[in-house]
Amino acid sequence: MDLRLKNICAILRKAGLDGLILSCPENITYLSRYRSRDSYLLISKEQSIYFTDSRYAGEAKKNLKGFFIDEINGPVFGAIAQAALRLGLRNLGFEQRYLAFGPYKKLKESLKKKVKLLPIYGLIEEYRQIKSSGELEKIRKAARITIEALRFARRLTKAGGIREAEVAGELERFIRYNGGYTSAFDIIVASGANSSFPHYLTSHKKILDGEPVLIDVGVDYDGYKSDLTRVFFSDRISSTFRKVYSIVRKAQDRAIKAIKPGVFINKIDAIARQYIASEGYGGFFNHSLGHGIGLAVHEEPCIAQNSENRLKAGMVFSVEPAIYLPGKFGVRIEDMVLVTKKGCEVISGALNQ
Amino acid sequence: MDLRLKNICAILRKAGLDGLILSCPENITYLSRYRSRDSYLLISKEQSIYFTDSRYAGEAKKNLKGFFIDEINGPVFGAIAQAALRLGLRNLGFEQRYLAFGPYKKLKESLKKKVKLLPIYGLIEEYRQIKSSGELEKIRKAARITIEALRFARRLTKAGGIREAEVAGELERFIRYNGGYTSAFDIIVASGANSSFPHYLTSHKKILDGEPVLIDVGVDYDGYKSDLTRVFFSDRISSTFRKVYSIVRKAQDRAIKAIKPGVFINKIDAIARQYIASEGYGGFFNHSLGHGIGLAVHEEPCIAQNSENRLKAGMVFSVEPAIYLPGKFGVRIEDMVLVTKKGCEVISGALNQ
Repeated sequence: MDLRLKNICAILRKAGLDGLILSCPENITYLSRYRSRDSYLLISKEQSIYFTDSRYAGEAKKNLKGFFIDEINGPVFGAIAQAALRLGLRNLGFEQRYLAFGPYKKLKESLKKKVKLLPIYGLIEEYRQIKSSGELEKIRKAARITIEALRFARRLTKAGGIREAEVAGELERFIRYNGGYTSAFDIIVASGANSSFPHYLTSHKKILDGEPVLIDVGVDYDGYKSDLTRVFFSDRISSTFRKVYSIVRKAQDRAIKAIKPGVFINKIDAIARQYIASEGYGGFFNHSLGHGIGLAVHEEPCIAQNSENRLKAGMVFSVEPAIYLPGKFGVRIEDMVLVTKKGCEVISGALNQ
Repeated sequence: MDLRLKNICAILRKAGLDGLILSCPENITYLSRYRSRDSYLLISKEQSIYFTDSRYAGEAKKNLKGFFIDEINGPVFGAIAQAALRLGLRNLGFEQRYLAFGPYKKLKESLKKKVKLLPIYGLIEEYRQIKSSGELEKIRKAARITIEALRFARRLTKAGGIREAEVAGELERFIRYNGGYTSAFDIIVASGANSSFPHYLTSHKKILDGEPVLIDVGVDYDGYKSDLTRVFFSDRISSTFRKVYSIVRKAQDRAIKAIKPGVFINKIDAIARQYIASEGYGGFFNHSLGHGIGLAVHEEPCIAQNSENRLKAGMVFSVEPAIYLPGKFGVRIEDMVLVTKKGCEVISGALNQ
């Protein structure tokens, strides 16, 4: 049995579960080492079954190893229930964040009170926080392509004249010509005052000569993601912008310097946040400092004020302090770090050289 | 009050509900005429509230009209519950397909048994099936860009040598330079035997000279989607391929000819399916004939064997019969149709000219 699956089975036993039904694509991909879409995975000591339909069954049969593949025709929850009953499961866990109420009710009805359904939260997500060397290799590759994409974007936007959406289109093309599979999320290209919206929806606005341009882009490389942000600007930028940019950069430096195993996560967030506040911009950094990155663009650990956890070696996450001045501009600088045994490594460090 | 909201409020009253909490982005977008992301909408006779966080609040305050915007800091379900209690709601509907079990439990706990939660299914989706002229304009625009993109892709792939992912990258770029916002879904570029997987995951395989290339691409134009598929091939293609291609084309023609208001949806599916079966390929068309298209790429109506509904004027959906010969090739031809008063219009008809 694959090590990942073995670990999860051991945890299930400890939790008093004899089976788990997975609906989160990234969790299924993590356990099966196969890129899952629109499918379910039932895990149990005796047998593990991948439930998929005719749209995906051909690829699954070719590439998914070590699991029984059930190509379903009718209702999926009927098939899952049938398998659970056949395997004699009594306590079946399900992912409460990734199973909608409607499907949950259907599954429950199909199980006819013979199998107990128990909500599970964060079980596999916790494992996914610590990256293996194989996973790191893919994340590094995704980050490398993103770094090149940002350098390309800097050249593209230098003189203005191109539209935000066109820059996004050029990046989408660049990613695929440089070994990436897709972008990891909708690319943000925000020029001028648009950069003051943290999750700006890229538009067809033309970038004007001299405007700052915020670009937030990530790459999917074999299922693993990257996520980086830079703001490009010309010599003619205002002194306020220069000042804000420097504060954000220093806030990031300070936070990154404090990263090492054992440190409380909320402390890392606090270092950046307090520095920004001490410089007079406390009200203008209103999201968390970062998020874990791996099979999902946003995963555990969340680098936020309300976190109660400590950093561990092998975690990969973004550090993205920001200052948004409504109607004026926004500066967000986002890098990716790996927690090492003694400190951390900035995976995207080459972007600053 | 906006007509869409008014209609839904009337339906809520009839269903014995005095409020509805929406979590499906497309349903929220439909009712608010604002492109919603990661947010919730509470609808009630007295007040309707949009719950969002600091990442989106700035854009919402600028562009979302007619709703109170609650920029939440803490737990969203706490804020929703507080509003529901303040408004004196007693029976609050929720979208059972779009609220996960975990969040449902949180919302329920926050309501402290003072408000009853009732699962709702398909209420707004049913409305969304019938497109207004404003919606049709956007869908037509999305389809027009897609048609141009496919013509461009045909030229790109003609001689082979380019990689599947590179074609996808070129299309992503083309879409944005031609007025589209993004692609509507991960573009499928499947060459040679890869075309026999219905939902193929585009790879870095090089397209060989003479191989058939299946391309499935859609565009997001101001939130509205398109979805078209073509298979390109050269003169040197096998006679089997020619035969299969001709069968799929005829199956589509026959299905489209039967489309008009009042006809049972399963009949449309059956016409294509039975024709393919009568030509000896019954086992090789194993998904439904089509799906509604609008704010979502896949929405109601589902054009399938098990549908019990009838066609109505104003519906927009795909007609995409296919034959997949495992290990050899696949042919899927997908067009978009609009049901008119007397028959139908092929929105993507220009692609065949």
